[in-house]
Amino acid sequence: MLRTHTCGELRRAHIGQSVTLTGWVQRSRDRGGVLWIDLRDRYGITQLVFNGSKTESALREQARSLGREFVIQASGVVVERGGKNEKHSTGDIEIKVENFTVLNSSKTPPFTIEDNTDGGIELRMKYRYLDLRRSLVRDRLLLRNQLTRQTRAYFESHNFIEVETPALIRSTPEGARDFVVPSRINPGEFYALPQSPQLFKQLLMVAGFDCYFQIVKCFRDEDLRADRQPEFTQIDCEMAFVTQEDVLAMFEGLIRHLFTTVKNKELPEIPRMTYSDAMRLYGTDKPDIRFSMQFVELNEEVKGRGFRVFDEAELVVGFCAPGCATFNRSQLDKLAAFLKKHEIGVHGLVWAHYTMDGVWKSSVDKFYPEDTVKTWLEKCGANPGDLLLILSGTADKTRKALGELRLLIGEQLGFRDKNTFSALWVVDFPLLEWSEETGRYLAMHHPFTLPKREDLPMLDTDPGKVRANAYDLVINGTEIGGGSLRIHDRQTQELIFKRLGLTEEEAQKQFGFLLEAFEYGAPPHGGIALGFDRLCSLFAGVDSIRDVIAFPKNNSGRDTMTDSPSTISDERLAELAISLVPKR
Amino acid sequence: MLRTHTCGELRRAHIGQSVTLTGWVQRSRDRGGVLWIDLRDRYGITQLVFNGSKTESALREQARSLGREFVIQASGVVVERGGKNEKHSTGDIEIKVENFTVLNSSKTPPFTIEDNTDGGIELRMKYRYLDLRRSLVRDRLLLRNQLTRQTRAYFESHNFIEVETPALIRSTPEGARDFVVPSRINPGEFYALPQSPQLFKQLLMVAGFDCYFQIVKCFRDEDLRADRQPEFTQIDCEMAFVTQEDVLAMFEGLIRHLFTTVKNKELPEIPRMTYSDAMRLYGTDKPDIRFSMQFVELNEEVKGRGFRVFDEAELVVGFCAPGCATFNRSQLDKLAAFLKKHEIGVHGLVWAHYTMDGVWKSSVDKFYPEDTVKTWLEKCGANPGDLLLILSGTADKTRKALGELRLLIGEQLGFRDKNTFSALWVVDFPLLEWSEETGRYLAMHHPFTLPKREDLPMLDTDPGKVRANAYDLVINGTEIGGGSLRIHDRQTQELIFKRLGLTEEEAQKQFGFLLEAFEYGAPPHGGIALGFDRLCSLFAGVDSIRDVIAFPKNNSGRDTMTDSPSTISDERLAELAISLVPKR
Repeated sequence: MLRTHTCGELRRAHIGQSVTLTGWVQRSRDRGGVLWIDLRDRYGITQLVFNGSKTESALREQARSLGREFVIQASGVVVERGGKNEKHSTGDIEIKVENFTVLNSSKTPPFTIEDNTDGGIELRMKYRYLDLRRSLVRDRLLLRNQLTRQTRAYFESHNFIEVETPALIRSTPEGARDFVVPSRINPGEFYALPQSPQLFKQLLMVAGFDCYFQIVKCFRDEDLRADRQPEFTQIDCEMAFVTQEDVLAMFEGLIRHLFTTVKNKELPEIPRMTYSDAMRLYGTDKPDIRFSMQFVELNEEVKGRGFRVFDEAELVVGFCAPGCATFNRSQLDKLAAFLKKHEIGVHGLVWAHYTMDGVWKSSVDKFYPEDTVKTWLEKCGANPGDLLLILSGTADKTRKALGELRLLIGEQLGFRDKNTFSALWVVDFPLLEWSEETGRYLAMHHPFTLPKREDLPMLDTDPGKVRANAYDLVINGTEIGGGSLRIHDRQTQELIFKRLGLTEEEAQKQFGFLLEAFEYGAPPHGGIALGFDRLCSLFAGVDSIRDVIAFPKNNSGRDTMTDSPSTISDERLAELAISLVPKR
Repeated sequence: MLRTHTCGELRRAHIGQSVTLTGWVQRSRDRGGVLWIDLRDRYGITQLVFNGSKTESALREQARSLGREFVIQASGVVVERGGKNEKHSTGDIEIKVENFTVLNSSKTPPFTIEDNTDGGIELRMKYRYLDLRRSLVRDRLLLRNQLTRQTRAYFESHNFIEVETPALIRSTPEGARDFVVPSRINPGEFYALPQSPQLFKQLLMVAGFDCYFQIVKCFRDEDLRADRQPEFTQIDCEMAFVTQEDVLAMFEGLIRHLFTTVKNKELPEIPRMTYSDAMRLYGTDKPDIRFSMQFVELNEEVKGRGFRVFDEAELVVGFCAPGCATFNRSQLDKLAAFLKKHEIGVHGLVWAHYTMDGVWKSSVDKFYPEDTVKTWLEKCGANPGDLLLILSGTADKTRKALGELRLLIGEQLGFRDKNTFSALWVVDFPLLEWSEETGRYLAMHHPFTLPKREDLPMLDTDPGKVRANAYDLVINGTEIGGGSLRIHDRQTQELIFKRLGLTEEEAQKQFGFLLEAFEYGAPPHGGIALGFDRLCSLFAGVDSIRDVIAFPKNNSGRDTMTDSPSTISDERLAELAISLVPKR
């Protein structure tokens, strides 16, 4: 090695030793007779000092020419430092440099390599290799690495086998859009990149692998919204001979293990909530339960008093915002504006409050006297000083809008602290959901989800009511993962394919191998997939998964550093037997 | 769980316990009053017994209907077994079944699920999920998992950080053919799938990550020869501030760690051999040094005696096959036929031997008297009973052919035992190699390899002679991996691009980001990539990497199980702004 030690390892115990360090010039301070340089590497920062006699002053002169981000190799003796620096673990010592070599020079970086950099996001993405030098950014990737290690350690201790499933797989028209890869050897045919190893992990269960995991890249060709990446990483798992309870227990164990080992936090037992309760009480299938503010339905209390908005609404529902009775007109208008801006499409916000001095008041006083308003607030368990926010309209949309509002207020009230973690299992998801777009039922998770046996009779009569053995893990209002028990017999799988509108021929063509596999002794099985990028961002306390990915793409799916994707040659296109079509 | 124990865990100590097992019916034996069933899962085989009283005979009757590969759940009591079965770790006990449930039935599998199966390769690939049930096949994947774990453990103990590099990257026309992925959002543009994370790992070094590893899927769109897969797995590593010696030591450490922990074998220190010695002594850059049979060059001894074949040859070279003097005409003809069949394109085989009774004899007695033949054999250090095999022609082709012959003889003599392991570092590879096809020099490893400083002056005068800081790890004649120190300054990198025939514009367009990165304090660095599939097959003692991949593709790049690749819809093609071109 070109060094004897790293920049993070020297301590008082090394005083007197001759050492050689390598690293980057973080900054230098020049006081004429003495020059200090902070030398940085992945492991820390060590101070170099150039001072003393005449021969050394020549060295100091050379060192003056070292700019920020120069890479140097410096040899010298570890000495005690006058003024200690408690910010660095090496702050007790410094290196009295005897000689150094410039291993590489550096132009002035386009932004400062500091936690508080002056570089904007686009510049930092173009020079991602410089952005990654910032300790803030590097530490997030080190954290990710910790999570990777501890995830593996957990699964290994539970006898899971890691199996690499293929990345070039069969394309299926069902579900989200695949990325495809033209096959040169099989002209006119395409591989798909996996959206998940779903079918392969199920086949591993059929193969008797018993319990499988993989930390695996997956791909989805979607229009990139704020925080999506075309490629993402999944903790993918499957177990045979399990009940739903076994799966939940195993992955609850994982999450708690990660919190204990990586964050040094004991996570309490993870509560369970049915999908229908989650929708009813929080207006979302991923409630943030760091705070309560549960919904209260007010149909009974508000109907038939002549207020048309409420009378015509399918649902009138509200929640109590603690201590918000003092919200003024402008604050309330902002909430209304928020609802409008997000095009949530529900009727105007109605509010009621219970002031500290015991007055019950609402924005619809014309229709509802004070004692009626009182019954609303009492039903919500309001305390003096609380504000009740009410929306009305069709049930689904109103719940969704109120859910957004609840998150906004929760944020404003400081209930969404990044260092508080509340996990939740949402269970009993519907098997199917109605698609306005296609005018038919689609699988809510995927077509391989096992329906609740007791609900099966409703598959023909009331398909939307059929519940599945499906569950999501939600932490702080973010869906971290989801899974299900799977169908493991041909008949049920065929039934579901049919219900989803696949003809027998289509089912056979696309999933014939799976249907056939189920005829050769497929065991009961189930599993889960956790979004690893999302989990890392949660642990890192950052909002974007981009911040925990070494080389992310932007919202157009581009890597601006390497300028990818890019055109390819006509020769290459010809080899692949494809040609470009100008897009209308 | 649907079970209390696995089929691999019950022992004498469990006798008397009530247990529930789940698994597959491996086989049953029926002796009328008693029925035994071998129940199998990933962990082992446990014998179930159905015997005894009248009520139990009804149960036995039901159990008779259980066919091979049925999945059952069986409950009963652990009892001592009359005749022990030492083949199974559970062979001391059996389960006296009290009741059982069929969890799934099975059709008769298309081949027997036994180590010695009757299924051909194509059938087994189509039903890979059944093939994976065979313990032989499953054990190889468990071995692979062991290697994965131990590889990670080694790197973690050496402070390497695992970073996930992107799978959708920029396509580069240099080198082997990329698989490409059309970008829907950027019509007319394509991502490539990585042939290796080469540039990203170098950028991680520029970013100061110091030492990186990843076990990562890579892709190469090549015509598939016998043992290639379009997707393969690589142990990918890079280190900063290292010399070549540091890299070799680190990865030698890895290999020895894997042998110790996974194979319980101590691998001796790995010898080093220069590329030129490897070519001279073994005719290949990946010598199998489990046995000697080094080449001896005979130009001086054979020229000018009127034998035109030798006189006109650039090189006359042979090796001594120990104890093969007794080879008869037919055996020797077979060797000649082997050379012909492989179209190795060199002049006919000449042999000489030293019989046990002290006679020196050759196939070219007409030109060379016995005492001349004696000098040849003596130069080779032949002992009585040895056979000298000689080829002649142009140096490169002759060496290559003789290398093939050496392997054949080594095989025949039993020197290529799969349980003996000889590793070797081949170092000092040439930087460039001449390509007949393109009429120019190409990078032998890749364009980022650091030339030996002392050889740089030859870059213009004798480019083929310039050596690189490049090295391969060879085990038992198989290249397991290769790497190099990398260029880390813009000037050298530009020089090499130019030497490889890239114009300044091309270099800038394709690798501008790398050239620029080298200007911002790039540290000296180097690394290696090991072929993980190959390593696994070596450890498993199998010839094909297919045998250590869960779901491999065939020689046409097809997965016959899922029938992939496949056509995609016109709608999908339109979205991607591409169309199919009938291939001529």
